[in-house]
Amino acid sequence: MADDETFMRRAIDLARLSLGETSPNPNVGCVIVGPDGRIAGEGRTAPAGGPHAEVRAIERAGERARGGTAYVTLEPCNHTGRTGPCSRALVAAGVARVVVGVRDPNPLAAGGAETLRSAGVVVDMGSVLHELAHDAMEGWLTAVTRGTPYVIWKFAATLDGRSAAADGTSKWITSPAARADVHRLRGGVDAIIAGIGTVLADDPQLTVRSPEGELAARQPLRVIVAGSRGTESGLQVFDSSAPTWVVAPGEDGRADLPAMLRELYARGVRVALLEGGPTLAGAFLAAGLVDRVVAYLAPKLLGAGPAALGFAGISSIAEALTLDVVDLARIGPDVRLTATVKGA
Amino acid sequence: MADDETFMRRAIDLARLSLGETSPNPNVGCVIVGPDGRIAGEGRTAPAGGPHAEVRAIERAGERARGGTAYVTLEPCNHTGRTGPCSRALVAAGVARVVVGVRDPNPLAAGGAETLRSAGVVVDMGSVLHELAHDAMEGWLTAVTRGTPYVIWKFAATLDGRSAAADGTSKWITSPAARADVHRLRGGVDAIIAGIGTVLADDPQLTVRSPEGELAARQPLRVIVAGSRGTESGLQVFDSSAPTWVVAPGEDGRADLPAMLRELYARGVRVALLEGGPTLAGAFLAAGLVDRVVAYLAPKLLGAGPAALGFAGISSIAEALTLDVVDLARIGPDVRLTATVKGA
Repeated sequence: MADDETFMRRAIDLARLSLGETSPNPNVGCVIVGPDGRIAGEGRTAPAGGPHAEVRAIERAGERARGGTAYVTLEPCNHTGRTGPCSRALVAAGVARVVVGVRDPNPLAAGGAETLRSAGVVVDMGSVLHELAHDAMEGWLTAVTRGTPYVIWKFAATLDGRSAAADGTSKWITSPAARADVHRLRGGVDAIIAGIGTVLADDPQLTVRSPEGELAARQPLRVIVAGSRGTESGLQVFDSSAPTWVVAPGEDGRADLPAMLRELYARGVRVALLEGGPTLAGAFLAAGLVDRVVAYLAPKLLGAGPAALGFAGISSIAEALTLDVVDLARIGPDVRLTATVKGA
Repeated sequence: MADDETFMRRAIDLARLSLGETSPNPNVGCVIVGPDGRIAGEGRTAPAGGPHAEVRAIERAGERARGGTAYVTLEPCNHTGRTGPCSRALVAAGVARVVVGVRDPNPLAAGGAETLRSAGVVVDMGSVLHELAHDAMEGWLTAVTRGTPYVIWKFAATLDGRSAAADGTSKWITSPAARADVHRLRGGVDAIIAGIGTVLADDPQLTVRSPEGELAARQPLRVIVAGSRGTESGLQVFDSSAPTWVVAPGEDGRADLPAMLRELYARGVRVALLEGGPTLAGAFLAAGLVDRVVAYLAPKLLGAGPAALGFAGISSIAEALTLDVVDLARIGPDVRLTATVKGA
C-alpha cells in the first residue's frame, strides 16, 4: 500500500537521524499510526541506555496506539536489556499490526515477531521498503552479523589520486564544503581510526566539529594505530576533547588489525571511520576489512606527491579491488563518491 | 521571447551534431522560421568544402524564408571562401531578422552582422542563449581566437589515480560503456595525440570505432609524439585506418609542443584529444596547453602502479592546477568527470 510506504519512509528517516548516536544499539525509527490513519506518535532510538524507538513512539501515541499500526525499521527486540522488550510494549499498547523493515540478526534480541504474533498482532516482515530500511541501518546490521565494526574508508585526493603535493603540503586539497561534509560523516560513526604516520605528519584533531570549530557534544573514540613508530605527547589527538585509544603493535612492529576490530566491537563500536594514511588504508584493504569507501575528489591536478592509497597486496589489473558506486554528489567545487566493496 | 529560445536551442542542438565534422570550419546550426512562426528550414555545417548551415537552411526553406527569422549559433560569415558569404545569402532569401548566438571571432569571416544591417535586416546579437551557443562551439571558438587547437586531455584511472597495475597490466580499467564513450569523444575531435611511450606499451589503434569494432567513416589525425624513443613498424597506429603524423623531437630529445600545436592548427585541426600517457600529459599541463579534462574514473582500487599523471612542474599544494567541474556523469559502473582548466 502507498500509505505503508509513506509511514515506513518516515520511520527510515528517523532511523537515519540516530546514526552514530545509539551504538551498541541499532539506529531504529518507529512511527505509530492510529486507527484513523494519522500519525499518533514517533520515536527513534535514544543514546544507549535510553528508551528504544518503539517505546518512545508508544509514549507519545498513548491511547491512540490502540488498534493502530506500528512501522519499525528493525524487528522489535524481545529481550530485557537496559530496557524492557519492545515486542511486549507494543502488545501492551494495543497495536494491531506491526510493519517491520528488517529482521533482527542479533540472536539475543530476535524473536520479537513471534511474541507479537502469539499475542494476535499481525506482523508484516520485510515487505515494505526492506532495502531502504536495510541501507539506513547497514553499518549496525553488518557489524552485528559479523562481530566486527562496519568500516568506512574515507580519503581526500586530487583528480590524479594524490593526497599531498611533492613537498608534503596538503592543506587544503578539498574545499571547506567537503571538509564540513567529513565532519557530518564523523558524526555518524563510533570510532575514527588513523595511523601514526598521518598523526605525526598532520597532527589532526580527529574530532567532530562545526564549521566554526565548535566541538560536537558526542565524540567518536579516536583510535591511533601506532605501528613501529612511537607516539609523542603534545599531539592534538591526545587532547581532552575526545577519548583516544592507542593500539600497540605486535612483535613484528605491525598492529593486528582483525584483533583490533574485535576489541573495538567489544567496546561497543559498530561503525568505524578509517581516515588514513595510505599505508594503513592499504593494509585494511589487503585484509578485506573495508566495507565502504567515501572518496572526496578535488578537481585539482598535482602530477607528483604521495598517492592516496598505498600497497594493498594487488599487482595486476585482474586483482583490482572492485567497488560499486552507490552515490555520486558534488560538494561545493569537489566531488564525493561513495562506493561499497564487492564481496566485503 | 520564449519562442526565440526554443528555436535557438534547436539551432544549438544542430551545431552539436556537427562537432568534429567541420574543421577548419565552425560547427554551426541554423533554423529558419517563416512569418507564420513555424520552422521553414534547418541546416548544420557540412564537412569542409560543403555548404554552411545557413545556406542549407535557406535551400530547405525556399520562399518560406521571406519575411522570416533565421536563428544561427554563430554570426553568418561575410567572406567568400569555398562557399559564398552567408550574410548575402540571407539577404537574398528575404529574411527579415537574424538572431545570432555568438559573434564571429575570425577577422577573415566577421562583418556579417554589418552586411545584414546595411540591407535592412534586424540583427539580434548574443542576446538569446549566448552561453549555450558558445558552449556548443567552444573548441572552435577558442582555437580560432588563439591560433592553436583546443586541447582536451582524456584519461582513465582507478579511484586511487592509477592508470595501470604494478605489473603494467591495464586492460581494462574502465568498462565497455566507458570505452564506448571515449569513441564518442574521439568522434568529436580532429586529432588524437599520444606519446610514443603509450603507443609502444599499449599498441593502441587511436581510431573511432563502434562497440562492434567497425571504423567510423571519418577518422581524426593520429599524432604520435616521438620524443627520444624511436617508433617501430607493425604498430597499429601506422595501419591504414587513419592518417598518422609522427612528431619528431628537437635536439634536446623533446618535442616542441607549442610548435606542434601551431602546425596542427595550420593543418586544419581545431580540437585535439590528448590521450596520454602520464609524461606527455604532465608536459602539456606544465606548459598550460590543456583546456579541458575528461576523466574516466573506475570504482577500482590498486594501491600500486603508474599514476595517471606524471610530473607537471608542481611541487606544492598552492601550485596545484585547479579545474572547474562542468559535468559529472555515471557511465555504466564508472564515473566521467569533465572539467575546464582555470585560466587556460
